[in-house]
Formats: sequence, C-alpha cells, structure tokens
Amino acid sequence: MDLHLDPDRLFPVDPQTRAVARGLYERVADLPIISPHGHVAPSLLRDDEPFSDPADLFITHDHYVTRMLHAAGVDLGDLGVGTATGTADPREVWRLFCANWHLYAGTASGYWLTHELVTLFGIGVEPSAETADVLYDDIATRLQQDDFRPRALFDRFGIEVLATTDDPMDDLAVHAALAADPSFRGRVLPTFRPDAYLDPASPAFRDNIERLTGAAGVAMDDFAGYLSALEERRAHFIRHGAVSADHGVREPLTLDLPADEASTLYRGAVGGTLDAAQTRAFTAHMLFQMARMSVADGLVMTVHAGVARNHSTATFEAFGADTGHDIPLRTEYTENLRPLLNAFGLKKDFHLVLFGVDETIYSREVAPLAGFYPSVFIGAPWWFLDAPDAVQRFRAAVTETAGFYRGSGFIDDTRAFLSIPARHDMARRSDAAFLARLVGEGRISLSRAQRIAVDLVDAVPRKAFKL
Amino acid sequence: MDLHLDPDRLFPVDPQTRAVARGLYERVADLPIISPHGHVAPSLLRDDEPFSDPADLFITHDHYVTRMLHAAGVDLGDLGVGTATGTADPREVWRLFCANWHLYAGTASGYWLTHELVTLFGIGVEPSAETADVLYDDIATRLQQDDFRPRALFDRFGIEVLATTDDPMDDLAVHAALAADPSFRGRVLPTFRPDAYLDPASPAFRDNIERLTGAAGVAMDDFAGYLSALEERRAHFIRHGAVSADHGVREPLTLDLPADEASTLYRGAVGGTLDAAQTRAFTAHMLFQMARMSVADGLVMTVHAGVARNHSTATFEAFGADTGHDIPLRTEYTENLRPLLNAFGLKKDFHLVLFGVDETIYSREVAPLAGFYPSVFIGAPWWFLDAPDAVQRFRAAVTETAGFYRGSGFIDDTRAFLSIPARHDMARRSDAAFLARLVGEGRISLSRAQRIAVDLVDAVPRKAFKL
Amino acid sequence: MDLHLDPDRLFPVDPQTRAVARGLYERVADLPIISPHGHVAPSLLRDDEPFSDPADLFITHDHYVTRMLHAAGVDLGDLGVGTATGTADPREVWRLFCANWHLYAGTASGYWLTHELVTLFGIGVEPSAETADVLYDDIATRLQQDDFRPRALFDRFGIEVLATTDDPMDDLAVHAALAADPSFRGRVLPTFRPDAYLDPASPAFRDNIERLTGAAGVAMDDFAGYLSALEERRAHFIRHGAVSADHGVREPLTLDLPADEASTLYRGAVGGTLDAAQTRAFTAHMLFQMARMSVADGLVMTVHAGVARNHSTATFEAFGADTGHDIPLRTEYTENLRPLLNAFGLKKDFHLVLFGVDETIYSREVAPLAGFYPSVFIGAPWWFLDAPDAVQRFRAAVTETAGFYRGSGFIDDTRAFLSIPARHDMARRSDAAFLARLVGEGRISLSRAQRIAVDLVDAVPRKAFKL
Repeated sequence: MDLHLDPDRLFPVDPQTRAVARGLYERVADLPIISPHGHVAPSLLRDDEPFSDPADLFITHDHYVTRMLHAAGVDLGDLGVGTATGTADPREVWRLFCANWHLYAGTASGYWLTHELVTLFGIGVEPSAETADVLYDDIATRLQQDDFRPRALFDRFGIEVLATTDDPMDDLAVHAALAADPSFRGRVLPTFRPDAYLDPASPAFRDNIERLTGAAGVAMDDFAGYLSALEERRAHFIRHGAVSADHGVREPLTLDLPADEASTLYRGAVGGTLDAAQTRAFTAHMLFQMARMSVADGLVMTVHAGVARNHSTATFEAFGADTGHDIPLRTEYTENLRPLLNAFGLKKDFHLVLFGVDETIYSREVAPLAGFYPSVFIGAPWWFLDAPDAVQRFRAAVTETAGFYRGSGFIDDTRAFLSIPARHDMARRSDAAFLARLVGEGRISLSRAQRIAVDLVDAVPRKAFKL
Repeated sequence: MDLHLDPDRLFPVDPQTRAVARGLYERVADLPIISPHGHVAPSLLRDDEPFSDPADLFITHDHYVTRMLHAAGVDLGDLGVGTATGTADPREVWRLFCANWHLYAGTASGYWLTHELVTLFGIGVEPSAETADVLYDDIATRLQQDDFRPRALFDRFGIEVLATTDDPMDDLAVHAALAADPSFRGRVLPTFRPDAYLDPASPAFRDNIERLTGAAGVAMDDFAGYLSALEERRAHFIRHGAVSADHGVREPLTLDLPADEASTLYRGAVGGTLDAAQTRAFTAHMLFQMARMSVADGLVMTVHAGVARNHSTATFEAFGADTGHDIPLRTEYTENLRPLLNAFGLKKDFHLVLFGVDETIYSREVAPLAGFYPSVFIGAPWWFLDAPDAVQRFRAAVTETAGFYRGSGFIDDTRAFLSIPARHDMARRSDAAFLARLVGEGRISLSRAQRIAVDLVDAVPRKAFKL
Repeated sequence: MDLHLDPDRLFPVDPQTRAVARGLYERVADLPIISPHGHVAPSLLRDDEPFSDPADLFITHDHYVTRMLHAAGVDLGDLGVGTATGTADPREVWRLFCANWHLYAGTASGYWLTHELVTLFGIGVEPSAETADVLYDDIATRLQQDDFRPRALFDRFGIEVLATTDDPMDDLAVHAALAADPSFRGRVLPTFRPDAYLDPASPAFRDNIERLTGAAGVAMDDFAGYLSALEERRAHFIRHGAVSADHGVREPLTLDLPADEASTLYRGAVGGTLDAAQTRAFTAHMLFQMARMSVADGLVMTVHAGVARNHSTATFEAFGADTGHDIPLRTEYTENLRPLLNAFGLKKDFHLVLFGVDETIYSREVAPLAGFYPSVFIGAPWWFLDAPDAVQRFRAAVTETAGFYRGSGFIDDTRAFLSIPARHDMARRSDAAFLARLVGEGRISLSRAQRIAVDLVDAVPRKAFKL
C-alpha cells in the first residue's frame, strides 16, 4: 500500500471548518520550534556523526515503538533494546518492525513514523515484510549523506531552542562546547533533573548523595550542606543556560517540614533507615524545597507526576529502564500541592508547570489551579497523551476554565530526535483544528483565533519557560 | 476588533445538523427561565436600585472573572475584591479587565460577558486598552436608565422562578416583602443552606449553633433540640416558598449513626473537642439527617460535592471566601451515599440532586444511580463545567445510561444576575446541538427531539425541583 | 409517532465521512457474530421453546430496561422482576413499558429495543399507551411462529460462537447435549465463572466450597485440595469447549502469598473467621491463583472489575440480584495487577482481558498495559458503556496508545438473546464511524481501514479468545 501524508491531516472533516483550520495552520506551520523539555542527548549535536542505521534510528531506542512489538510477542532482545543494544542485527530488527507495521495504525507512533518516512526520506510505500529491505537500503543510503547529519537536520527542522534533560552532577561540558562552537547556531539548554538525588527509594540515591556532597565538600549527612550543594548545582546549570528544573514523581505530594524534622529524615535517608512513610515524607519535603529554590533562583519548576516506573520487574532486570512498561497512575494535584502553593504559589516570577498522564486532572484540577495561581501553568498533553485525539480532549477540558494563555506550549518530551518536527506539527495542526471548531461554533472570532494560533507556538512557551 | 454574537453559536458545524439544532433551539429560545439554584441576593430585587458601575456589575463580585486577572498577575486588591471592596477605582478596574480581554477567549466567562455586552448594552467592539473608557461610559450611562434596573431586567430576562441561597437563620423578610409586593410578579424563592450549621470544622459553627438553639429555646448541647431547631428553620423556609435545601460538602459521605452516638458527637462538636475523624463522622451523619428531614418535609435535597474551598490561605486571609481559589477534588458518590440511599433512596417523593465538579462521576456513578433510584436526579454541569464543551461531554456521558428525564434541568448557580440569560441560553443551545447530533445519527426522531428540547427547560426542572 | 431505523444510523453526520463509514460497515455488516462472553441460558437453545410473551421477552428479565421504569417510580413487583417473576400480568407490564417509552430516548436500551422491534417484528409505530395493546398482540402472534424460536433466531442472527457463563459445579450437560445434537450447528461454549467459590464474602461461599471439595473427594479445609478441585472443574469446562474463565471482582487486587499463609487464610475462609482485610487478601490471592491456572490450562482470563453489586439492600432482599442497582466504582488496574503481571504477564499464550465501567482506566491504565504486555488485552466497552457515544470515547482513548490489535473484540455480555444482533451491529457501525473519521482526518488510509474493520469482528476476537 502507498504511504501518504495528507496535507489536510488532523483538520476537522467538515469542509468549512477544515478550511479555517488550514488557514490557521498555515500561519504557524513554518514558525521556529521551541522545545523546552525533551530527552535528546546533547552529544548528538556536538558529535554530529551520521546516524548508524534505520533500526537504531527509528526502533531500538524508541520505547514507544518497541513496546508495541513486544506486546505482539516480539522479544525485546531481538530488537536490541536496552542492555541488548548492539546484539541484534539491525536489518532483522527493521524487518520485524516492517512486518508489524499494521499494529501502529491509528497510534501516535504510527503517525510520527509516517511523517518522518515521508517528509525526511521520501518513502512512498508502507513498511511491510515485502518492502522492508528496499526501505532499509533506501534509508541507510540517505543516512550517509551530509544533509542527514544531526546538525543539518537541526537546521532543517527549524529548531530555535532545544532543552535536554541532565543529571545534576553532569559537568555540562557538552552544552558548553555547543555554546562555544561558532559553527552551531542553535540554543541547546540543559535541564536540571534531580529525582535520583531527592528520593531515597531511588537505587542510586546513596551514591548520588555521596558524589553530590563530596564534590561540594560538605558532610554527607549534613542536610543544610546537601541543600546548598543542590543549590550550587542549580547555579551551575543556570550558568550553562538552563531555564528549568524537572521533577518526575510518582505522586506530587508536597510537605513543609520543620528544619529539624527534615534534617532527621535526611540522615535516615542517607543511612538507609527510613520506612516507606518516612521516605514518602522526605521526598515530599524535597519537592517543597525544589519550589523554594525555584523561587530563589528563577528556574521554572516542571512536575511530571503519576507514573509507575518499570512495571515489569523481569523486563527491568533484563533490559533496564525506559523499556516501555512505565504505566500511568491516578493523579491528584489539588491537595498534594497545597503546602507548596500556600508557601510559594503567589510568589512573583515563580513558574510551576504541571504535567500528568491521568486525563481526569485536566478539567478537575490543573485548569482551575492555573486559572487562579499566577505561578501555575498547564502542562501540554504528555507521553501517552501527546496524540491528536488526546490533544482535542485536553484543549476541550482546560480552555473553558483557563483559556489559551495559561499553558506551557507544546512539549515533545522525546528521545527521538527525528520525531521532533512531526510532533510539533501535530500540535500545530491539532490546535488549529480546535480553534477552527470554536470559530465555526461562533465562540471566538477568526482574527482572535489567528492571534492565538501564533501565540500558542511563540508567546505562550516563551512566557511559561522564561525564554 | 468587532464584538459579535453569532446567531448560530454553539450549534454543530455540519450544515445539516446545524439546521436541525437551530430548529430545536427556536422552540425553546424564548421560554421562561426557571432558575432553581443560584446566588443572586434577593435584596437586589427588593431595592431595585440602579447598578452602580460597570466594574461593580461585571468584575468585582464575579470570582470567575477576577481569578483570570489574578492568574495573569493582577492583585485582587486592585480589583476591589472581597475585603478590598470599595477601595479600587471602578474605572481603573474596568481598564485592567479590558486590557486583558484576550485571556477570556474560549472561556465560559468570556462567553457570558460577550453575550451580556452585546445583547444588553449593544456593544459592538471588543474590550481592549483602547476601547475601555468608551465602553465604560457607554455602560455606565445605560445603567442609569430605568430599564436597566434589576426588576426591569428580571422581566426582560423572562425569569419565572429564581431561587436564592440563604442562611438558615435568615428571617426571609426580603423574600416576604417581594412576595407581598403587588408590583413584582416574579417568584423569588429562598433555599435552605445549612452547611455552616452542620460541619463542626466551619469557623462559624459554634456561633451558628448558639444562635440556632437560642432562637429555638433549646439547650445548646441538646442534640434532639438541635435537630428540631433545624426542622423548624426548614419549616420557616417552606412557609416562605422554599422548595429545596442545598448542601455544599467536601466529600458526600453519609452515615446512619445510633442516636446516642450522634448525640455524643454533637456534644463534642459544640464543645470543640472532636478530632478529625469524629468531625467527619458527625458531618456525614448530619448529611444523613438532612435526607431524613427532606423525606419528612418534602424539600428537594441538592448536594454540591467535591470542592477544596479557599485553597490559598493567604488569599483567604486577605480577601475572604469566594475569591476564585476553590479547587475541585476527586469525588465518589457510589459508596458515600449508600447509607443514605439504603435508608431513603426508595422513599416516595424524596428528591436528591447530585452535582459535582469531577466529570468522572457522570457516567460512572451519577447516571447509574439516577437510572435506578427514583429519588436520584442528575445535577446539571456545575461551576467549572457549565460551559459549551463540558455540556456536550455531560450529555454524552449520562444520556446513554439514564436518558433525558432523570436530570435537574440547567442550574445557573450564579451571583452574576446579568449572566442568567446568557447561561440559560448557552444550555438551550448546547442541548439543541446534542439533540441535533442524535437526530443526525439516526438515534432519535426529530419529533422526539422537539419534545425533549422543550421538556429539558420546562417539565424536567419542574419535576426535579417540585415546581 | 413512527418507529424508524435509519440505515445510516450511528455514522458521522458529515456527508463525506458518512459515505466512508457506510462503505466500511457494508464490509462487515453480514459477517458472523462471535460472542465470546454473555449470559444467555444455554437451555434456551436446547429446549428451543417459543418465547412466552412480549413482556417476558423484552422487559422482565432485562434489568437495563426495568431499572429505567423503576427510576420513574414503577414498582419492580409490578414488572414481575426477580422473585416476583410470574406474579405480574404480562400485558400490564407491557403497557407500563410502552407508556414510558420516552424515557428510553437516547439510551442504549432504547437503541437495542428499536432495532429489535423494527428488524425482528416489523413494528412501525412507537410504543405508547395508545399502541401498547396492538404491539403486544402483534409480537405475541409472531412469537408463536416457528421462525421465532431460539434456534431459528440463532441462525437468522448469524451467530457462529456463543459463550455462556456458568457455575463451576455445572455439569454442562446442556452444552454437551447441544454439541451432540446434529440438528444444531452453532457453537455454544461454557465459561468458567468461579467468583462465588473464591470470595469468602459471597453468601454462597461455604456451601459452594462444600460441594466443590465434596465432589472432588478432598477435605473441605485442605487448600491444596481446593485448588486441585478448581483445576479439575476448569478441565471439565475445557473438555466441554470452554475457552475462558471470567472473574467479576469489586477491586482487581492481586496478591502472591506464600503457600502456608494462603492455606491459613483458606481455613479461616471456610471457618468463617476472616476479618475484612483477610477476606480481601484471600480473594486477591485467588485472583492470582486463577492467573496461574490460566497459564497452565490455557483458559483466557477475563476480569470484569469495579462494580458495587446490589447497592439497594431493600431491593436485593425483595427481588434478588441483577435487578438494576449494581453501580460502578472507581477502578485501578496498574498497581492492583502488578503482582499478577510480574508473575505471569510475560508467559507465552497467557491472555488476560481487562474490562471496567470506570472510563478513566482506558487511556490511563488499560491501553498502556496492553501496549506492553503481550498477555493483556483491552476489554471492549462494558455494561453501561456499550453504547454509541461510549464506544467513540473508548476507541479515542485507547487507539492512540495501543492501536486496533490489542482488543478483545466486541462483547455483548447480555442476557437478552434478541438484543445480540442489535449490539454487534451497533459495535460494527460505531467502529466504522471511528475508522471513517481517521480516514477523513488523514490518519489511516482507506485500504487500511477496510482491513481493520474486518479484523475487529473476526481476527481480533478470535485471537483474544483463542477461537
């Protein structure tokens, strides 16, 4: 079957509304991409090496893609996932993927992949067992061309800002090198991601604390020293251009504890003696501390809450983390954030962006919070929800309460560098579709919709992320 | 930019379905407004004084409006909110509002305000920094005209019944005066709202109990006396035309406690000695008692559940309650109401209307309960959810399980007198849109849809609220 | 008013999308019905007796239908429900139903009933007080015709496979008789439904254990004997063609307990000495054991979770179970199933189908789980949710994460034999509508949609249920 990219894709089917959506989209289609949160490795752009092969590029490292094959019965080892990287023949991996192309119909991954195959590689036939080898060779050939190297693609994609996600102890030398390189014009910003330094339940917690406090020259069990060491690392990130600190938490509980109680819990955390309730309390207090630090140093605080990580223990042990079995949980922000918001919610220039994978929070909690607190911003649909229908549900759920100006702008949150334009294009088309419906239903004027469409990809993310 | 009210607003974009929706809407557009729950002050209609100024009318008292400005960084004090009333220059407040008009695009508030500005004041340009003064003067001039006084508007709006919300110790003299006034033909009914007499956690609880029991001539710590005092106040309300008692609860827990246990808890409540669990139990028992009284005296029992009131302590302390930071919570009715429904759910003529701001309860709990218990009625979309898209989600969520005849009819629940027609018109258009889709999809006949459209604004609220 | 069945019903209103939907539907409209889960009594097909009367056929035994009349104030006794069966005059029951026909407008039940009245009985006028007697006589006459007997209808409906739901101690003689009958060509398969043998809170638990262990010749309080007795009953079911075991649980908690702890709990369960927490733990362990057995014997494990059964105690006592007041509860799968999935989720050929009546689990939990675990399948919209709008919400919620090939196929789950074609036709139309929208929005090609439409009623259920 032909592989085809409809120029009117994601627009409403009603012809008149479609025409409005198309007009709105055309105003933003070519605007620069602002990507203030994601997981591309900065070394990709420093090294600017050719991508190795189609499997490596599209499949092996994208757990959105591999999980679907796994669900269909394919062993992750046969895809070279995680600890199995390099052990699978890329052509065989590609064949497995192509033979199962029908599984991706209607999915977000299928949508990105189609976009990439058509727009980047000019592919015109669907992947299948029959076409796998031709496609592989075709793509592999192109990957050797200079205009398919990361920096060339960065320019072709029109990326203005790309934020990475980085360990607090990262020296950020790669970011510094990119910033100092006159031949590279993009802004590649680090993001401070301290989860494994805040949560005693993290396997690396003790090692991390040891490195953090050791580098700062403070005693390992000194809570004040630990806090100032974190502050210093944040300052290091800010010096390298960071605009935000990102927090991935199972539940977004926050607690304002007295200093001595927090200090005692910290010593227990370092000593490994906390029970589950104490661990929870300490982690909740550290989320509170992160807000305090954001108020002080200006880093935008983003919270990604509500995921049970590494659901399948056997898979985690065999293939590592980020292998497709992080599963969403019910999420609650209203009560959990109350201590944090009571302390910092009205502070000038504090920005708190709330993401979730439980759609029920959109209309019930996030939009009402962002419709009152000047500090709270509505995180764009995240992870499983950054897909066309989910975006329509998101906009419908938050707009009537909070309008268009309390959001974060679109977040691609991706490791898959090549999917960045596909994702932002999806968001722009989906927002155009939503706005066109409101125009068609007489709820906003066309001229207002035109301004909003542009603001959603420009002023809105710049404001939320202080860019 | 022009300010324009599309005559086909909120109808589906598909031309054929739109025509059906328009036809349905035309049958109900001019039917009288029944408003069985809301927060308009009855003195407004007794006094019939001109509204003071545009800011007072549209902004200062409407926490839907002020919260959006607050989220954009405006200080509530600069809007004259709450304890700051009278301290802000109304023209400056109006300018702040107009300069931020774009924030309301796509919101429910923006929709009401546009409706009011166009239909009542004939405004034809969008509020903006540039147009603010002209609009202010234009509106202020009209407000001095006799036909913009509350009673003239009441008539122009076609309001047949307007229920207010009143403190149990209110003497209802205002209602009596209105009823006795031959020059006023509308029905203005009080509603019994006893939350602060039932929940020991309410700051006013002890004072309220003192006044309640004192007036009834019973000992303050006599539970039976307290119950009979409440019953007498309900009777007082019924004598003044009340048809319902309204209950705003954080969680809708109900408990049937033995009399001696309830009595003991009550004494603790009066004495201020209850812990959190006891307070919760007592409040849950009093919700149960309210159902018992409704069975006895016939007042429709409405429950508005699931809101964390006054989320921002600093804002509450500075500006008081109802200042835009009541935030929804997850809500559960199935288990919480079981004791109440087991005792009273099958009682003849008992009516229990369930409202919520957690949309997940619609299809999961409220529609199934109302599809079985003759006493249970589905509360219309409330608060953050009384907006066009939310209404479509609501109808889609409840209709397949419970049809069109188990609802409350639309509830405006507003303090903003001028927004009443806008809100009811929104509901009528939205229901017409929903019905038109069902006609278009061959799920109901046009003639059936025509009957339902009329019933939804007439027979349905009259039945639910015993009007 | 006329009763009319629109040939384009449930298709999108946009003319072009409607045409695509119609084309997709036409490819599947007449394909055989696979019904792998439901509640039709197999004796209906063995006996092949004429249906007795219209009330018995359409009303008395269908708690979807009777609950709506009950909500409108009709006494269940007047409908001959439950323990009142046979006490009500069927013509009077039918009149009550017809006089209240408007209550069903827009409901799933109204949709099924219209389909049945038009397609099976050629009824052309709406039920009403005026038409009740004519319709009754018309239907009653037809029911005496040979082509309205169950087997004739089974053939006319095009049912290829019909699964029943059966008690573990059922001898399955009826199924054996049907299988041995050369004059009956359909496949009627039993389903193992052991809830009342696993949950100590079930009123029949002790009696059931006594019969189960007695028949197996093991001591009643011997846990290993109890497990092997269950295994033997499963084997008995498999010998009679069963392909699945069904589990109806309030919450889908699973626990992997040490053998001695499980054994101790079991003795307590038999002895009636467990407290609530122990009962919960034992039931959770037995759900875990059921998965273990499914891995061993290959029965597909289906879980129907999240319903508070018999919500109205008075109704339960007067009329028995399944009388319209089973009410959904919030449901959680991610954490509850973790022990089960960690033990068995990656086992080859293990199939676990997850159903729920809390829509929030679709995008949050079920699709992500099914998008990773090869064992997990997405249960079709169930119970209150097997209706046109709910199906659209379901498809929109799961497809972007899990595609079209991780589902169970449609499940009618019905006791109402005559509604089976109406329900499957609804599902086929709804899926055609969903696919047509995706085609219209340029997200899948028409040829892909054509394959998927067929797979959804053929390959997908055959795979999920191993047919």
